[in-house]
Order: sequence, then C-alpha cells, then structure tokens
Amino acid sequence: MLKSNVVKNTKIGIIGLGTVGTGVVKILKDFQNIEITQIAVRDIHKKREIDNLDRSILTDNPFDIVNNPEIDIVVEVIGGINPAYDLLKTAITNGKHIVTANKELLAKNGQELFNLANENNVVILYEAAIAGGIPIIMPIKTTLAGNKIHTIEAILNGTTNYILTKMEKGSVSYEEVLKEAQNLGYAEADPTGDVEGFDSAYKIATLATIALNQRVDINKIYREGITKISAKDMKFAKELGYKIKLIALAKLSNENKTDVRVHPMLVPIKDCLASINGVTNSVVLEGFPVGRVMFAGPGAGMFPTASSVIGDILIIAGSIDTKEALPMMKCHHDTDAEQIDINDTINKYYIAITAANTPGVIGSIGEICGRHNISLASVLQKGIDEQNTADIVVITEACIERNIKSAICELEQNSNILKINNLIRVME
Amino acid sequence: MLKSNVVKNTKIGIIGLGTVGTGVVKILKDFQNIEITQIAVRDIHKKREIDNLDRSILTDNPFDIVNNPEIDIVVEVIGGINPAYDLLKTAITNGKHIVTANKELLAKNGQELFNLANENNVVILYEAAIAGGIPIIMPIKTTLAGNKIHTIEAILNGTTNYILTKMEKGSVSYEEVLKEAQNLGYAEADPTGDVEGFDSAYKIATLATIALNQRVDINKIYREGITKISAKDMKFAKELGYKIKLIALAKLSNENKTDVRVHPMLVPIKDCLASINGVTNSVVLEGFPVGRVMFAGPGAGMFPTASSVIGDILIIAGSIDTKEALPMMKCHHDTDAEQIDINDTINKYYIAITAANTPGVIGSIGEICGRHNISLASVLQKGIDEQNTADIVVITEACIERNIKSAICELEQNSNILKINNLIRVME
Repeated sequence: MLKSNVVKNTKIGIIGLGTVGTGVVKILKDFQNIEITQIAVRDIHKKREIDNLDRSILTDNPFDIVNNPEIDIVVEVIGGINPAYDLLKTAITNGKHIVTANKELLAKNGQELFNLANENNVVILYEAAIAGGIPIIMPIKTTLAGNKIHTIEAILNGTTNYILTKMEKGSVSYEEVLKEAQNLGYAEADPTGDVEGFDSAYKIATLATIALNQRVDINKIYREGITKISAKDMKFAKELGYKIKLIALAKLSNENKTDVRVHPMLVPIKDCLASINGVTNSVVLEGFPVGRVMFAGPGAGMFPTASSVIGDILIIAGSIDTKEALPMMKCHHDTDAEQIDINDTINKYYIAITAANTPGVIGSIGEICGRHNISLASVLQKGIDEQNTADIVVITEACIERNIKSAICELEQNSNILKINNLIRVME
Repeated sequence: MLKSNVVKNTKIGIIGLGTVGTGVVKILKDFQNIEITQIAVRDIHKKREIDNLDRSILTDNPFDIVNNPEIDIVVEVIGGINPAYDLLKTAITNGKHIVTANKELLAKNGQELFNLANENNVVILYEAAIAGGIPIIMPIKTTLAGNKIHTIEAILNGTTNYILTKMEKGSVSYEEVLKEAQNLGYAEADPTGDVEGFDSAYKIATLATIALNQRVDINKIYREGITKISAKDMKFAKELGYKIKLIALAKLSNENKTDVRVHPMLVPIKDCLASINGVTNSVVLEGFPVGRVMFAGPGAGMFPTASSVIGDILIIAGSIDTKEALPMMKCHHDTDAEQIDINDTINKYYIAITAANTPGVIGSIGEICGRHNISLASVLQKGIDEQNTADIVVITEACIERNIKSAICELEQNSNILKINNLIRVME
C-alpha cells in the first residue's frame, strides 16, 4: 500500500476504461484510503490489461456511477461532449466532486459546469485536460496565485509537435510524416482534431481562462492547423534561425483585452519552446511579480495523464472534510474576456513566395509591403529552377494582421509573383 | 484591490524588510482580505523603497511579531539560523502558520520545525526557499502526489550559473567573472555560500526530502563548488559536446537508498539543463507514473521570490478556517534516508591531464584506468606547448567513484603525467 496522506477513506467512480482510465486504475489500486467503488465501461466482458481487476465493480451504465450515493469523486475519462456533459451535470447535482481530462467539454461548457459546482459546493479539477502530466493548473491556482499573468505561449498538442519535429529532422513532407505517425499510433485515423488545432484550442481556452482570469470563448479563438507547412518552409525557417511549432498563445493587452489563438509560428531557435521536441508539451507563463516561468513534460500517454488525474483525486480526497470547497480548487470568472479579432493583432510574418526570376522583383515586394505600412526585416532569395522561377522568403517587422492580408492580396496580383506559398506568424 | 480568492481577513506579520520582504510588501498591500499587521526590521528609521508605508506597524523586535496574538501567518525572510530558529519555534508554539524563504534553516532544522508544526496544527510553507519563483514544492505535494519520484537534477543557484554561463560564453577565468558578478551585485562580497555549493546543498536537502519522501541529512550531502573550473575545462567540455553546470542531484536507488550531492557536471548540450543560462534555475524531476517533467524560471530576485512567498500566504489564507491542516500542506517524513557515500556512487568522469609529449602516454593512461576497471569513452589530445607538454582530456565510461580516485592516485605517480588538472563528473 502506498501512503497517500489521505486520512479519510474516499470512494471513487471512474467513467471510462480506455488508455487513461486503465492507467488510473493500475496506479490507484495501490493507494491507502482510496477505494475504486465502480467503473463504467462500454463492454463489461472485454479483456482488460489490469491485474486482478474486480469485475463485479464494472457497469455498462455510466449513470450508475453519477447516481451512486456512496461515491465521493467521479473521474470522467471518456472525452467528448455526449454523454459526458449530462453525466457530469448529474454527478455535480448529486454532490460529487469531479476529476476530468475532458478538454473539449471544459472549453465548451466549462463556465456552466463550474458555476453548477460552486452552487453545489463541490469542485471540478482538470489538471490532466491540459498538457497531460505537466503540473500547470494547480501551480497557477496556488503558488502563482498572487500574479497577474499576461502571456501564455505553449505547445499543447503532442501529435502535431511530433509531426513538425519529424518534418524538421528528416526534411520530409507533412503527408509522409502523418502517415508514419498514424502507423505508430501517434496520430489518429482521422487526425483533424490534432492537425487542425482543435485540441490545442480547447486546451488554451481553459488554460487562458484560469491564467488570465477572464472567461475565454472557444468560438472566438482564431485557429489554424499545420497541414499547409511544407518541407521547404521548414528548411527556410532553419536557415533564418527558426523552428516551426504549433503554438497556443494567449496575451492580455494593456487595455485588458485578450488575444487567444492557435497557429503555427516560426520560433527563434534560442527560445526554449524551440527545443521542445516530439510528443513533449510545454507551457511558458509570463506575469508579475514572477517574470517568466516554463513547464515541460509528457503531454499525453497512459501514465503521465494518470499522474495528473491521481494528483487531482488526492487533492480532493485530502480536503474532503472541509466545510466549504477551498478557494484554490474553485473556478469562477465573473468577467467575460473581450477577445481581440485576429485581424487586429500585431505580428511579425514569414512570407514564402515563388516569383519570376526578373530584376526588380524583390524591389516590387518591398514597395508593395511598404505601401501597406510593412517593413521588411530580412529577405532570402533561393535557387532558380528550370522554369526560371525563384523562391523568395521574407520576414517582416511587426505589423497589423489586416495590413499583411491586404499586402498579400496585392502581391498575388503582381505579374512577377507566381504564388504566395505560405504566410506564417513569427514569434519575437 | 486585487481579488485574492481569500474570503476571511487574514493578518500577516513579516520578519525582515530586505530585498524579498520589500517585494512581498509592495505586492501584498494590494490584496483583498490580506492585512499586513506588523513588520520587524533592524532599523525602524531607515528609508524604505515602499510607497505609503505605514511606519506605525514597524518594530525592531521580531519577537513582537511571533508573540502578537492578532497575527495568523508569520512570514520569515531574514535568512540564517539565528534568530530565525528561535522566532519560528515561538511562532509555531503560539499557533501561527509560517511562510519562510529560509533554505539554511529548513535544511538544518526542518524536521524539528515540521514536527512542531504538526503538533500545533499549523503549516510551514517554503516555496520561495527553493528555486525562487519556480513553483516546485506545491506541484510535488499536489499534482505529482501520486508519483514515486526517483530522480532530481537541478540548477538551484543563480550566482554560480551566471558565473559558469559567462565563463563559457566569454572564455574567461573564474576569478575574472566572479569579480564582474560581484560588481554587478550578482555575487556577494564573500561568495563562499554560493560558489562552494552550500546554497545548492541546503536547497537540494529540502527538495529531495519532500520529493523522495525520506528525510535527507544535510551533513551527509557531498558538496563541491565551482572554484576549480578553468576556462580550459569549459573549452574542452564544449569540444566534447557538453556544458559545465553546478548540478544538485538526488537519486533513489533500487534498494531505496538515496544519493544526494552538489557538484559541477559536464551536461550534454542536448539535455535541457544545458540550455539554462544566467541566473535562471531549473528542476527536472523523474518519477512514475509521470515520467520526466521540467520546471524553469527565475531562481532569485525581489519579485520572483515575492511571488512564491505570496502564493504560500494565499494558500494558507484560503484554507485558514479548516479544522485541521490539509495533508497537502503538511510535511512529515518518518523515514530517515539511507544516504550513499560519494565513494560508492557510479559516474562517468572527465579527467583533464597535463602530460609530457612522449609516445605512449595515452596508452599508459588507458592501461592505468583499465587496471582500476575503468573504460575510456573518448580521449582528446590538444596542442603541445613550448615545454613540450600536451593537454589530454579523457571521458570515462560509468565506474565506481572509489576506483576513479585510486586511478587518479596512480596517474599522479606516473612520470609522464605532470598534472591532473581537474576531475569532473559527467551527466549521462
């Protein structure tokens, strides 16, 4: 038996026995004073990779768990909106504490669930929903609670970071690496949720809400995936001193507006996020008084995710006798964030252009950008091919997104510019 | 007024108004429901860099604070053993919670103070004592509480990391950089506490105690400083693909023995600790089920340290009404660590040798090492000087420290080996 510092016997119901649920059961069964009372599964007869699993506690009706009067804490690890939403509402109304890894549900219905939890004097903890095994939510709510956090820069999706790392190291195309990742089980058959940035957007919505202390609306988060990144972009970025990463970003402006988004970025190789490779996740927070702190670790997987789920269970179990839910466990945000439109944000940009090999083409690019109030920081012209066309790569100074878009329109109309291959934001 | 999530008005007494104390007061005075009741200073007439400081709450007798019946939480930021030890004992006996940044006191008298706190049903929090603004203690006690942590690798002293970073970037001597660091206020006039590794040893003693869940004895921690690192060592390390860092290390062996130490190490440039530059601190934890997680951020300074002190104050203030101290805030370790002697540890080594430029000298080195069961992983011979001597740098495979020491004795007696310049352990 492992010591758990938990004094009172606490009864747990687990909904879902997939990868994360299995990890939780494997670890949790060794803990003192924590009892797994019931587990909801889809198929109660399926073979499970758990030694000495007591099959009498399995049920195929998850409502058995949320309505079981004995259970103190409901652990939800099925993901998705239905039936998780109804299950958690019922559990909360029945006075049960919640531990969940469900980033989609938190992003879409978090506010409602947190309010319901506060009304019922129970808590919802969700460390596993954001950045897997990395402790990030609890540090924000406890040790960093005295800070005004104004910036989050994060890599929150292991699948896309794995793909981008492989593309960079092997100079291979997105399609090739995706196929390989699917074969290895690092990417799903339908990879949309990861590669189009939905997963990262869910996570940054909740993370920004708690860190910036304003309710962020998932529907107003600008989102762009990695499917348009080419092996050439990777190569050009490297030559210019950058790596390309899918970055989840949240910033508080001086006017207290929030800028939350998910998109690929050129990250300077000296920035610590540039060295986050493979399926690793990382969160960088900046605020006052702490300054800049960084967290990194495994963003997914059976055991790292179980680590965070179990941490949350132990936190609740350790304070289950307190009259009222502790402030550090509550989540309520009276203010809705005033979210900045992507067109009003200010960024540096990488523009990859295929142009005719004509004298003055770089001059035209500079002239068009200049007319839209965009200064160029660096220009790289690469080899001329058989069609007598050249690759031109431009990094701009910081400018308003609206202006870069109108400049791109005008560039596309210029007869010497054959194609705008990509437009990627650049981290400063 | 900043929202603090703290419901009940909490009264704070602060002992010490130096750099950290000043930071705490500057930030804390804006918080709802937190009242600074009294501050102990050495000189109540001294000018202070705090706007609108109410001088009526200053006292030059710190015992006024620990005996003040109104005060709920005593914040100790004076450092050192005396009078901090007596003050905290009195405060705890008087039923006050403690927030302290005093790594030396915790390392030397922590066990006694934690036991006293448990008897008196109060808590001692000390996030600021280890790695400044980085949240590390609370994550271990909460989110990571379900883990068996077996390895800590950390950079816990900003001064030495600043000196080593400067030596590496500028190819300058230790003495030169130390002088510069002293002029800039990054190193003290008497730098012993930092450069000889005492500060790191205090911190790893407490960090290892909490993370490995065994009481580590500060007197049994092997400690070696950075004063013998030369500009040449830096250069050789770089050529071999390493950086030199002062590493605080704690490992749990398979037999549950602990190996805790502080000494310089060659860190592979690909390891994340190699990229921790300047006054930044970093802690890497490895355990099951989480895997490897990393934390990095400012390890010292007025505001980062205040961030951690204030976090601890808010944690206590938020749960001050609970009948009993929460398990996540308690600290008790029934087991004393069985600490491994440095001579019994297994390491890879860097050996820097000055040898006569004679055929066969590398052969002799290999032969002597072989006789002590030490295999060589790489050998580097550098330029021959006017005295016809050569620099030879050896990296060994992993071997027992005892063996390397006897090999070094024998090498020193070999007539072709003029000097063993340095012996530094190598991180794998």
